[in-house]
Amino acid sequence: MAGDRPHEFALIRRYFAPLASDPGALGLTDDAATLTPSPGCELVLTKDLLAADVHFFSHDPAEAIAAKALRVNLSDLAAKGARPRGYLLGLALPQDWTAEWLEAFCAGLARDQASFGITLLGGDTIASGGKLLLSVTAIGEVPVGLAVRRNGARAGDLIYVTGTLGDSALGVRLRYEPDLAARLGLDAACTDYLLDRYLLPQPRCGLADAVLAHASAAMDISDGLTGDGGHMAAASGVDLHIDIDAIPLSPAAQAVLARDPARLATCLGGGDDYELLVAVPADRAGLLEADARAAGVALACIGKAVSAEASTGVLRYFRKGASFPLAGDGGFRHF
Amino acid sequence: MAGDRPHEFALIRRYFAPLASDPGALGLTDDAATLTPSPGCELVLTKDLLAADVHFFSHDPAEAIAAKALRVNLSDLAAKGARPRGYLLGLALPQDWTAEWLEAFCAGLARDQASFGITLLGGDTIASGGKLLLSVTAIGEVPVGLAVRRNGARAGDLIYVTGTLGDSALGVRLRYEPDLAARLGLDAACTDYLLDRYLLPQPRCGLADAVLAHASAAMDISDGLTGDGGHMAAASGVDLHIDIDAIPLSPAAQAVLARDPARLATCLGGGDDYELLVAVPADRAGLLEADARAAGVALACIGKAVSAEASTGVLRYFRKGASFPLAGDGGFRHF
Repeated sequence: MAGDRPHEFALIRRYFAPLASDPGALGLTDDAATLTPSPGCELVLTKDLLAADVHFFSHDPAEAIAAKALRVNLSDLAAKGARPRGYLLGLALPQDWTAEWLEAFCAGLARDQASFGITLLGGDTIASGGKLLLSVTAIGEVPVGLAVRRNGARAGDLIYVTGTLGDSALGVRLRYEPDLAARLGLDAACTDYLLDRYLLPQPRCGLADAVLAHASAAMDISDGLTGDGGHMAAASGVDLHIDIDAIPLSPAAQAVLARDPARLATCLGGGDDYELLVAVPADRAGLLEADARAAGVALACIGKAVSAEASTGVLRYFRKGASFPLAGDGGFRHF
Repeated sequence: MAGDRPHEFALIRRYFAPLASDPGALGLTDDAATLTPSPGCELVLTKDLLAADVHFFSHDPAEAIAAKALRVNLSDLAAKGARPRGYLLGLALPQDWTAEWLEAFCAGLARDQASFGITLLGGDTIASGGKLLLSVTAIGEVPVGLAVRRNGARAGDLIYVTGTLGDSALGVRLRYEPDLAARLGLDAACTDYLLDRYLLPQPRCGLADAVLAHASAAMDISDGLTGDGGHMAAASGVDLHIDIDAIPLSPAAQAVLARDPARLATCLGGGDDYELLVAVPADRAGLLEADARAAGVALACIGKAVSAEASTGVLRYFRKGASFPLAGDGGFRHF
């Protein structure tokens, strides 16, 4: 081990204890943390693993890797209408980690902790024996029994998404194909925008209260609208009819599609959007829209839920009222 | 991907959903689980990572790997006096995983779930990009404010440990040095016993209620008595005086030490005991002992806590009243 790298206990004291301000974290001096939900609330638990060169690139900035690990979990909490409380961090370090890398990583955690109002509750740090791997268990809370599930969409509900879709899927293609930006005629601003959308997801925590108040079903889109919308349809037993022309696309994604329309399948089937997919009864749609405006979260109505034609609910795309079969089976598989 | 290996969603349905019987797990059909502590209780959260060929051997039986991942976390809960509620499982699979391996792994989880009264609440499964890595977040509960910490030992407390120490540290040496058993003249029964103690920790969940009722401080011994006892001493601000001759050793460990007394440092400095280290006020020691007998958990008094000689509490070994400096700095470092 390099001389300037502290062992586990010193590492906890130096880097992680300052992130653990919740009294239940016990300053990370114990093997466990304690947590009590607020009165009338239950806890919402979610866990996502991220592996180097599977979910991010090993040479991405350490701050961005830290932020992504937190944000993909915060996105799950937002989709359930939950307020974040804290997280546990499992950090499996590669053999060549440095103190500088860990400092930057913890700076990334600290910045997002401040942004999203969470603190570190506990965790574990090990040598991975291979590449970097992160495991975050994020904990939020909702009023007892009110967590918003993906299976509650009903015929007649309107279907909304936050932000814009497909940016991250295009961004990761740009990472894998260094000449792609040139081939697509993308300018530097569009290229940087798409790369950044892959690097740093924006969890829509600002919409969590509105989701809790109005949604009949919600989930975050981590595996693409095609796949995840299909999951919501199947779980809810309704068909989701999505209007292709209503799907919100960034100017950068529009520029890509103007040159190569076939990449629409990438935009809708690719992963890592971390936008919210929300079903809401039609008579509450106006309230959801107003709350989203107040929260500063972009929200677009992209379709509606209808009675399932077959025994299993599915997602169907339409354009100008006609069925629009999308090439590819969609649904990015991290695994 | 091999044709007989299901993708993530089928894998969840086939292998993991049957393990998730808690209503809050939502049958693993959602991205998050919900959990409410029992009335008057708060949650206790702990997380341990285990990496192949760091914390276990890649070719260990899948059932045993599953059990170890659960048990090292259950051991932490027991040390806090907590009753287990459930766990989240992060599973980063190597590229060459097979359906047979995963079936055996889940059978190991199912068996321990039944033994320890817990269920799967949620998690994530990914391709690790390297070797197998497991991340378990275990959740227990204690009456609000009563979680037993490692920093509560006071001068005058008696110090106890469960089970026997050093078996696992010897067991892993036997794994690394195939000719060691022969060199030490160990018979097959002793060899198998030590190997099994490394492979399958026995979390002392049966003592959790007694720890909660009587202990002033407790922790599990995962990094060896020398290191972890030092942590309790430092956190509590007392010295722990440990009588070497009172330390409980298995017949197998005794056989090793009869041949090679210097391996005592391995027994006390090695890791993976997963026995409990408990400090208890002298006037409650009899109650702890009685509760341990009733629970069928072996318990030995190995020393006492005394006022710290210096500004930081430390652990000191004694033999027949005389200071007994142990070779090596002790404290196995997984990391």
